[in-house]
Amino acid sequence: MSGVNSTRANALDATDPLAGFRDRFQLREGLIYLDGNSLGVMPKRAAERMVEAVTAEWAEGLITSWLGADWVNAPRRVGDKIAGLLGAEPGEVIAADSTSVNIFKALTAALSLNPGRGTILTETTNFPTDHYMMQGVAGFSGGTVRAKGVEPEALVDAIDDDVAVVLLTQVHYKSGLIRDMAAVTAQAQAKGALVVWDLSHSAGAIPVDLNGANADFAVGCGYKFLNGGPGAPAFLFAARRHHAAARPVLSGWFGHAAPFAFEEGYRAAPGIERFLCGTPPVLGLTALECGVAIMAEADMAQLREKSVALSELFIAEMDERCSDLGFVLISPRDPALRGSQVSYTHPEGYAIVQALKDRDVTGDFRAPDVLRFGLTPLYLRYRDVIDAVAAIHEVVTSGDWDKPEYRQRAAVT
Amino acid sequence: MSGVNSTRANALDATDPLAGFRDRFQLREGLIYLDGNSLGVMPKRAAERMVEAVTAEWAEGLITSWLGADWVNAPRRVGDKIAGLLGAEPGEVIAADSTSVNIFKALTAALSLNPGRGTILTETTNFPTDHYMMQGVAGFSGGTVRAKGVEPEALVDAIDDDVAVVLLTQVHYKSGLIRDMAAVTAQAQAKGALVVWDLSHSAGAIPVDLNGANADFAVGCGYKFLNGGPGAPAFLFAARRHHAAARPVLSGWFGHAAPFAFEEGYRAAPGIERFLCGTPPVLGLTALECGVAIMAEADMAQLREKSVALSELFIAEMDERCSDLGFVLISPRDPALRGSQVSYTHPEGYAIVQALKDRDVTGDFRAPDVLRFGLTPLYLRYRDVIDAVAAIHEVVTSGDWDKPEYRQRAAVT
Repeated sequence: MSGVNSTRANALDATDPLAGFRDRFQLREGLIYLDGNSLGVMPKRAAERMVEAVTAEWAEGLITSWLGADWVNAPRRVGDKIAGLLGAEPGEVIAADSTSVNIFKALTAALSLNPGRGTILTETTNFPTDHYMMQGVAGFSGGTVRAKGVEPEALVDAIDDDVAVVLLTQVHYKSGLIRDMAAVTAQAQAKGALVVWDLSHSAGAIPVDLNGANADFAVGCGYKFLNGGPGAPAFLFAARRHHAAARPVLSGWFGHAAPFAFEEGYRAAPGIERFLCGTPPVLGLTALECGVAIMAEADMAQLREKSVALSELFIAEMDERCSDLGFVLISPRDPALRGSQVSYTHPEGYAIVQALKDRDVTGDFRAPDVLRFGLTPLYLRYRDVIDAVAAIHEVVTSGDWDKPEYRQRAAVT
Repeated sequence: MSGVNSTRANALDATDPLAGFRDRFQLREGLIYLDGNSLGVMPKRAAERMVEAVTAEWAEGLITSWLGADWVNAPRRVGDKIAGLLGAEPGEVIAADSTSVNIFKALTAALSLNPGRGTILTETTNFPTDHYMMQGVAGFSGGTVRAKGVEPEALVDAIDDDVAVVLLTQVHYKSGLIRDMAAVTAQAQAKGALVVWDLSHSAGAIPVDLNGANADFAVGCGYKFLNGGPGAPAFLFAARRHHAAARPVLSGWFGHAAPFAFEEGYRAAPGIERFLCGTPPVLGLTALECGVAIMAEADMAQLREKSVALSELFIAEMDERCSDLGFVLISPRDPALRGSQVSYTHPEGYAIVQALKDRDVTGDFRAPDVLRFGLTPLYLRYRDVIDAVAAIHEVVTSGDWDKPEYRQRAAVT
């Protein structure tokens, strides 16, 4: 164990201004959970609210709860809270559907705003569902839309006069590399393209300033750093300047200007509600709202400061203890370029992640050889980082990872 | 009160083979809930399962619950249970997304199977979101797809050689009229079109035999007769013969053949899973599964028999007590043509529905003048029907409906 880092960790925990948030979450004693970038932990309030939602709102209120419990406005109400985390205004974000479905909505809306152009551009290393949704749009377009992926460093140069929209993830899901949202948005817009930002690993993880970056559209995930629960509804941001002209393709009744007038013809709602489609997922929104509400109480500057300190400590400790064990840092060393995670490659990464679980340290694995450790300032302690690296060191030096059950165990997300 | 019908109701309750199901649901004493066609009531098991899902599966199991609690298979597992209610095979139904989003999936899949044709046909009186989703597909197609609505009686004749797919609701949301699924499917297929059936008011309400009717695609709602909770995930059926060739447009990562291999190119899953898109809404699926499981325990022939008996009793009592009060039955008098609801028009329908709520009778209203009363055999008693009609009679004859608060009250869904 590194005495210096361990002492530093204890000192940092003793003065952590966010330390009080940990008690707002249900965390099993002994567990070091470094996978909040995949599925966030449960706010205690979420358990209370789910009971209320089913026994009081559903069972007791029944149909009257659409108004009485304000179910009907949940996508907008939760969206407004998320907007506050992302540098967006109330009325620019809704919570609904999945990230994938929201990518489809944002891409097709952007295409409708840029009718002379037909290419959707992304980087090859983007998250798979971003690629797949692009390919779906292109496949349905009958040849008018093309989906194109280029190497990350070639992206800006690849924005030619056919590129209608660029789809980019702000914080890379594997490496944690942060894209400069303001710079890339300005470069794309200068070339006549719009940008859809995937904030799945940004929202609640780093400061985001959508309107400061003059962003067009964004989408993101409710179940990671926002702690919204498994398969939580996702969110969609559309800059207000685009609301009137962006044509919804997933034009369901909840996006209609008058959903309960039961008109035969679709008229899009004037504001962000036009990006709603079907009936809102009330139970999922109930849990998500609890996670978002806690995040909204925290000071984002303090969150970021602690996130950076956690990852700096993690890297320092790995450098000191595990530098000759085959790990290669693939996250940026410059904390300004790094999201709220630290990732390494290791040829035995898969088995190591499995072996760590049996020592009550949860990280995750991404093919072919990436170990990801999510660092969530709301509920992690500095000493958890010291203990996690100690476990990594033990698992590798003891050879514990090299067991058939660790190699064979099925893994998911 | 009609003595004859009342006596009959008591006799029917005394011998009702489904009477035991009522206790499986949380129902407030005194409430007569005739709105299960809009939002079904809560299975007691759903409250227990939601607590388990958040405190054990989410909070305790965290990321391991994707496998440990089988979250990853929930769309298929719940879909298989729904399949059993609809005359479909395991592996032909998934539970996911909203009905509106699933309409989009089914329509675009059908279009991909019928490439020489470009019209989506429906009847003008179909539910609004069915129209809106058709219009969204057409709007995005750049002129290659047209959305067309015709009067119900003109529908079959309107299937010309440009109609790729017909979108029809089996049980009409306002009148409860049942379309003959087998006959219309055969007529459409004979003319070279596919059919997408909207089963929102069928699933759990009437016997459905999708494969017996050689159906192509179907979608439907989880929160009505299936008692899946507010905004529950919806379902999608695709006949097995269409799986290999139907091209998903909403091609998200959960529909990929190898979702966790993180490939750059989309390869559709071989089976029904290709109609999944984003990460499944686990909490919503948990509640839905409880409602579907109870429905699966009931004998569908007994359900239908009781549903018909409830509606026959409702109409007989309305005929006897309210025939001169301005109500006009718009549901078919022939029970073979009627779903699990009874609907009337009345010029003061809106205010009457509101006034009934204050007498603890919940029906619902559909513009401009329709009162709908859903009849749900799993938890309604025959004497509830007698009491409901007594309340309708009192509200109208006393003039209680004619109050400003009933006229002004906002209504939803």
